[in-house]
Amino acid sequence: MSKVITPRAEDYSRWYTDLVIQAQLADYAPVKGCMVIRPHGYALWENMQRVLDRMFKETGHENAYFPLFIPESFLKKEAKHVEGFAPECAVVTHGGGKKLDEPLMIRPTSETIIYSMYAKWIRSWRDLPLLINQWANVVRWEMRTRLFLRTTEFLWQEGHTAHATEAEAEEEARRMLDVYARFAEEYMAVPVLRGVKTDAERFAGAVRTYSIEALMQDGKGLQAGTSHNLGQNFARAFDVQFQNREGTLEYVWSTSWGVSTRLIGALVMQHSDDQGLVLPPALAPIQAVVVPIFKAGDGVRESAAGLAREIAAADSASPVRVRLDARDEVSPGFKFNEWELRGVPLRIEIGPRDIAKGQVVLAGRLDGKKQFLPRAGLAERLPGLLRDMQTALLERARAFVASRTFRVDDFQEFKKLLEDPGGFLLCHWCGSAACEASVKDETKATIRCIPFEGAEESGRCIRCGADSRRRVPFAKAY
Amino acid sequence: MSKVITPRAEDYSRWYTDLVIQAQLADYAPVKGCMVIRPHGYALWENMQRVLDRMFKETGHENAYFPLFIPESFLKKEAKHVEGFAPECAVVTHGGGKKLDEPLMIRPTSETIIYSMYAKWIRSWRDLPLLINQWANVVRWEMRTRLFLRTTEFLWQEGHTAHATEAEAEEEARRMLDVYARFAEEYMAVPVLRGVKTDAERFAGAVRTYSIEALMQDGKGLQAGTSHNLGQNFARAFDVQFQNREGTLEYVWSTSWGVSTRLIGALVMQHSDDQGLVLPPALAPIQAVVVPIFKAGDGVRESAAGLAREIAAADSASPVRVRLDARDEVSPGFKFNEWELRGVPLRIEIGPRDIAKGQVVLAGRLDGKKQFLPRAGLAERLPGLLRDMQTALLERARAFVASRTFRVDDFQEFKKLLEDPGGFLLCHWCGSAACEASVKDETKATIRCIPFEGAEESGRCIRCGADSRRRVPFAKAY
Repeated sequence: MSKVITPRAEDYSRWYTDLVIQAQLADYAPVKGCMVIRPHGYALWENMQRVLDRMFKETGHENAYFPLFIPESFLKKEAKHVEGFAPECAVVTHGGGKKLDEPLMIRPTSETIIYSMYAKWIRSWRDLPLLINQWANVVRWEMRTRLFLRTTEFLWQEGHTAHATEAEAEEEARRMLDVYARFAEEYMAVPVLRGVKTDAERFAGAVRTYSIEALMQDGKGLQAGTSHNLGQNFARAFDVQFQNREGTLEYVWSTSWGVSTRLIGALVMQHSDDQGLVLPPALAPIQAVVVPIFKAGDGVRESAAGLAREIAAADSASPVRVRLDARDEVSPGFKFNEWELRGVPLRIEIGPRDIAKGQVVLAGRLDGKKQFLPRAGLAERLPGLLRDMQTALLERARAFVASRTFRVDDFQEFKKLLEDPGGFLLCHWCGSAACEASVKDETKATIRCIPFEGAEESGRCIRCGADSRRRVPFAKAY
Repeated sequence: MSKVITPRAEDYSRWYTDLVIQAQLADYAPVKGCMVIRPHGYALWENMQRVLDRMFKETGHENAYFPLFIPESFLKKEAKHVEGFAPECAVVTHGGGKKLDEPLMIRPTSETIIYSMYAKWIRSWRDLPLLINQWANVVRWEMRTRLFLRTTEFLWQEGHTAHATEAEAEEEARRMLDVYARFAEEYMAVPVLRGVKTDAERFAGAVRTYSIEALMQDGKGLQAGTSHNLGQNFARAFDVQFQNREGTLEYVWSTSWGVSTRLIGALVMQHSDDQGLVLPPALAPIQAVVVPIFKAGDGVRESAAGLAREIAAADSASPVRVRLDARDEVSPGFKFNEWELRGVPLRIEIGPRDIAKGQVVLAGRLDGKKQFLPRAGLAERLPGLLRDMQTALLERARAFVASRTFRVDDFQEFKKLLEDPGGFLLCHWCGSAACEASVKDETKATIRCIPFEGAEESGRCIRCGADSRRRVPFAKAY
């Protein structure tokens, strides 16, 4: 607790790492590139999973589980897929004390193993659509890692669906992108751009990749979720055919889509400050902490415990996640710092004088302001206060993104803004991969996506000056 | 659906595999020893997870996530542990296109990687007890596999706790065994013996291993969960010390405990029959199915849909998981067979005549009997009917175990009963590892555990005739 978090202004990247470690979200593992998700971080992930899982089920998906191991030959069946993923694979060569006949790859994503099963399960149009999701760990060998954002092993969900028509697959890919966008904005309070990736940034094996794109406090973009229309690519590679209503064999049309523990990194970087985490109430493992300022025998601790129970019981449909911190081996000031560091949205202080006056002190994590509130009715008011903070957090993030979104028409200005302060640079682009690559080579900025929204507008490509009909957001990205 | 399930009496082992595959709980994966858990099986696992996770949290545990990979050197730090697990490990030798400096084992269990972190996190008595659980996949290379019961990769939870005293660790190990026993009996309706494993059957690295032991319909035992008192073995191997209240450094005392997707196998084998699965209502993904017997335009389908909605809404605190099967491309008879195969506890049939009479036909999966019930009030009655079935299922299983538990004092009779009909053979045992091994070599029967319950009684060892003061249950086991 006594360790200092590097201020954002001094070194944003160190601030992030200090914060993740000191708030005990995660820790470095003794295996290169891997992390340990500690209970506070995992509780956050569980809350994310609960909401997402409900959203997936409401849109008709079921969960299943496929093997961790993928035979090397499977990965090779889809040409672009193997090209994209083989270099990142961890390879099992021995098992049970013997060398294996065929090496096994640890799944970097599960299309290949899943389509080998779909080929077995899908026979007729009656078996479609097949709407399956998997919660799993995956491994992609990474050279430069960062807690949550890029680690060799990470946790995620991957949806894999098969459909009878191209239109249905397209609709599904878009529907799940919308689910992700809604989750990011309504629960994480992270505003996102929705759009389609350029050819250069497309998933290996997809026809079209959609993504949601966020903007962090340091002006860097972050891809927060992707949804792919896979066309018939994997169906052809794994021979997944169905008999249509007319009795003819056709290849299925498919999609895949995923979000990962990377979302925790996005959440931290979007909202937190130099004092610690700022967590959105909708996902915070602890939404309110009650801290009694007490001396042995003065009854304050018992009164605070009563208040915590009241709060927990006030709304049975969606109980506030409240914690009583009645430890006597640390001071109130120590507790305030600790819960601030851990991002608890609301802190309720209660001392002997407050009890006499029938009040409590309420401190909000977002603005740090303290206010006196009557104790009577407090439990009933809390859900509303939490909703207000959720709204305020999204508004603050939206205002931030707006303040860091620039319309840029000059390449020198582009380079200047990209370095300071950074952000989404809305520029005209002629649509050529050459211009895109050339901007990336020179500045490291990429086109985050071609957004669905945004008006047509005539202009000239920021790089080559050729005609363009719309702007796209460039940014450096995580 | 047209495939036949081998009857239990003909070949129990084939019956089991036929059933798991045809009821779509799981399927063979194209990777040796691995399986795919299909949506129906995974929904069962999710229900198990939900209950167990709640029980773990109610006893003070938090979830976390540790890496899949374990450096080979870690496994070697605890001598007995490496001896037990190294031969079963899958080994990653290459990552990111390069040979690794040190091979990585895929976790067969996570004590070693977890204790390397606990050494970092635990400093003082204030950090104890540390009560962490992990839901994860693990890999143990298996030569002879069987869906759910023994596969190379499986899903499980592993609790890992550290304590300040030996007594607390012992108490924890026993507490979690009790949680498992309660889960098995109250939710799975699987009666279990609780006891301590013999030295020969102890977990590699433990001081004491406790287990719950079930008995399947073919008279074979099945270890359904284990809880280990690890003493200070892993604390010493990984140097996990804490400063006690007196300021002295001590090694922590620790436990680990786990159950896995094997429980699904136990559930299937305990209750199911030649028609298909029989699932306990407390865990069944679908608790009741409504099947309308309808013709286009006769309004029965709509009436059935209304009934399904009523059932779902009747108890908001714990809604009945109901499904309406209004498909028109298959016959009612086909549906009856399908839901029987899938183990749905209650089937509600409703046709035009039933509507006229204000009744429904209710068929229970346990006994197959049909009864007419008034439609009015049915939704409110269902939770009670499901509870009754849950109780009846446990009673039936208890009666079965009682009928297959034999007191045996003669080794010839022992061998005879072991083959036909099989069961728990309660025999005197002198306590020597030699007698235990000799019985196993000759008959494949093992001592399932030394039960906590059971009266002291003088007698003579079934094998060597030496003095014995109590009986222990022998059985062949999965």
